[in-house]
Amino acid sequence: MGYDLTQQDLHDLAEGAAVLGTGGGGDPYIGRLLVERELAAGRRVRVIGADELPEGALVLPSSMMGAPTVFVEKLPSGGGNAAAFRALEEHLGRTAYAVMPTECGGLNSMIPLMLGAQLGLPVVDADGMGRAFPELQMQTFGVLGVSGSPMAIASDHGDTCVIQAAGNKRMEQLARALTIQMGGASYISDYPMETAEVRRTSVHGTLSLCRDIGRTLRRARQEHADPFAALTAMLTGTIYSHGVVLFQGKVIDVERRTIDGFARGRAVLAALDAPDDLLEITFQNEHLVARRDGRVVAIVPDLICTLDTGTGAPVPTESLAYGQRLTVYGISTPAIMRTPGALACFGPAGFGLSDPYTPLEDLNLAATGSGRQASQDSGPPAPARWA
Amino acid sequence: MGYDLTQQDLHDLAEGAAVLGTGGGGDPYIGRLLVERELAAGRRVRVIGADELPEGALVLPSSMMGAPTVFVEKLPSGGGNAAAFRALEEHLGRTAYAVMPTECGGLNSMIPLMLGAQLGLPVVDADGMGRAFPELQMQTFGVLGVSGSPMAIASDHGDTCVIQAAGNKRMEQLARALTIQMGGASYISDYPMETAEVRRTSVHGTLSLCRDIGRTLRRARQEHADPFAALTAMLTGTIYSHGVVLFQGKVIDVERRTIDGFARGRAVLAALDAPDDLLEITFQNEHLVARRDGRVVAIVPDLICTLDTGTGAPVPTESLAYGQRLTVYGISTPAIMRTPGALACFGPAGFGLSDPYTPLEDLNLAATGSGRQASQDSGPPAPARWA
Repeated sequence: MGYDLTQQDLHDLAEGAAVLGTGGGGDPYIGRLLVERELAAGRRVRVIGADELPEGALVLPSSMMGAPTVFVEKLPSGGGNAAAFRALEEHLGRTAYAVMPTECGGLNSMIPLMLGAQLGLPVVDADGMGRAFPELQMQTFGVLGVSGSPMAIASDHGDTCVIQAAGNKRMEQLARALTIQMGGASYISDYPMETAEVRRTSVHGTLSLCRDIGRTLRRARQEHADPFAALTAMLTGTIYSHGVVLFQGKVIDVERRTIDGFARGRAVLAALDAPDDLLEITFQNEHLVARRDGRVVAIVPDLICTLDTGTGAPVPTESLAYGQRLTVYGISTPAIMRTPGALACFGPAGFGLSDPYTPLEDLNLAATGSGRQASQDSGPPAPARWA
Repeated sequence: MGYDLTQQDLHDLAEGAAVLGTGGGGDPYIGRLLVERELAAGRRVRVIGADELPEGALVLPSSMMGAPTVFVEKLPSGGGNAAAFRALEEHLGRTAYAVMPTECGGLNSMIPLMLGAQLGLPVVDADGMGRAFPELQMQTFGVLGVSGSPMAIASDHGDTCVIQAAGNKRMEQLARALTIQMGGASYISDYPMETAEVRRTSVHGTLSLCRDIGRTLRRARQEHADPFAALTAMLTGTIYSHGVVLFQGKVIDVERRTIDGFARGRAVLAALDAPDDLLEITFQNEHLVARRDGRVVAIVPDLICTLDTGTGAPVPTESLAYGQRLTVYGISTPAIMRTPGALACFGPAGFGLSDPYTPLEDLNLAATGSGRQASQDSGPPAPARWA
């Protein structure tokens, strides 16, 4: 069931992870380069299912922390994650069996692959969000009772810290303060878990799913097919059952500031042939809510993806720019992310939004299961490159 | 040579420490209460000289970190220092033999006494400043080659962190960010040292010296004598050889803001019978420079103390207020604090001041060694309560 990642897998996985990153989780190009360097050095990336872990094995989730806007200007060194990983092992007095991702994202799905290659450890095919979220307490691990602490955090300057926080939200606050001081980006290992906890609390199979999403988009491009229809067809039958085109249009406004360690802002899209038909997306690293003419059409923890209308390629929040032709694509979040406990942590209230959580498929009854309907409904036909 | 601290010693020590705290290091009243609680519970405070430490013993300096303005509103819990101390012991995998202060200050000279009583450990009669400074890298320990890391930091909320920084200034930056996030005040143990390092890098005998300063002020009050003349006489022959009255007047302006985790600001005093004769003090937790009519009369690392003109009682920066009758008293810093390495770390340049360092006794040639001369020179005779 486990497999070694090929160069092609890596390309697909990076792109698919940026789709599930919902605007955040970092740039897939930067992330991919980090892993390619390891593959070029002859190292291998082994992906295994949680069911392949031996009983009682220690697994350390590993990622980067910070505003994606920072990663664009300050490229990851490649050594910080190993430093954080080793610091946490040393603190625990135990050797880890495997690495795993904390979230899906163009960069943060790649970090564990790079680290696994560097350390010669397998990477578990699962994570704690099945998407990207901006804050450390927003993980299924924590929702299902795993402590984020002790966590280790490292900088590019040779600093490491071990945090034992009184709760997962406190851990986020302390680690965020350190991350800002470390230059806006840091390397972390948190939520140390044993096999049974990994199996019980993770969103499973997400690395392979990201690879499949990227593969679907690549093949649609090769075949000049509609990437969104292909994506919707592919997602049916996975734990992300509903994929739907929410809107297609042109970016007419972007507000984005890097504050408090996050990329915060909003983007407004106008339909190409109906300039009064507007969709507004609010983001905090990741897209939180999409409102069409004031009405919520998708809200966290459902996924709001900004994809290039011509190619289906994901466009992260830090790259949003005036004039881009984008398709806003919604994906229903897996069931483990919709429990009352999960919604209390990373539903709308977790971000200070007053809108209630309503499942994507209920907000888009007509379109669900048929991305093209929504696309047609939202105005103009998309550009014909893939038609 | 070691001794158990009496209740009277404690009173004297708290007051003397606030004098050497040069406006910072925390309020002596709050500090004293923390130790009195331990004495009232039947615990003892044992003070020992560095020469009484067994060879190879581990010593952990312990203190509070944050803006003194915060301590006034948010009293220390009394348990945070033990949490930081234990976290550092655990990280090092060793048991400490003794506690010691990092600085002299109304609160930070008391913290190790409280902790020693709580843990049943002796307190070393030495510290790393012989005064108070606002930042963690500003210690003779670091100037003489001791690493501040690993350090432990704890909050009142049950959080602990261990920082392994790439340098002592980096350690300050990371710990400051955590302290702000912890509510503006935290509990730390840093610069873990063995006996030989303590002996080589400390300012020695400062706890006893603080006690002697407090005793001198108390007796002067009892005898209706001039506290400043008594202080100057007492300091002669110690490693703080010169004590001098720099100015006497009334506080006519105070600017004070709690920003970036520090109490920053300035105070202006006017001579009582010559309102155009002004002394301005700039502070960052501690008093940094005193300028009389624009001319520097004392500058870090020499000590600038704001003392009540009637009683000699120290007035910390967080308590400075309009209308107070204060005597600004300068004390020459010990020789270990005046080396080129020391001045590079905590001389004027360490605080962004463009003025060069000039020893207090050179700036006040006429007055040095005779506090009353300077006092007479600075305008009116002091109030006659002790005359």
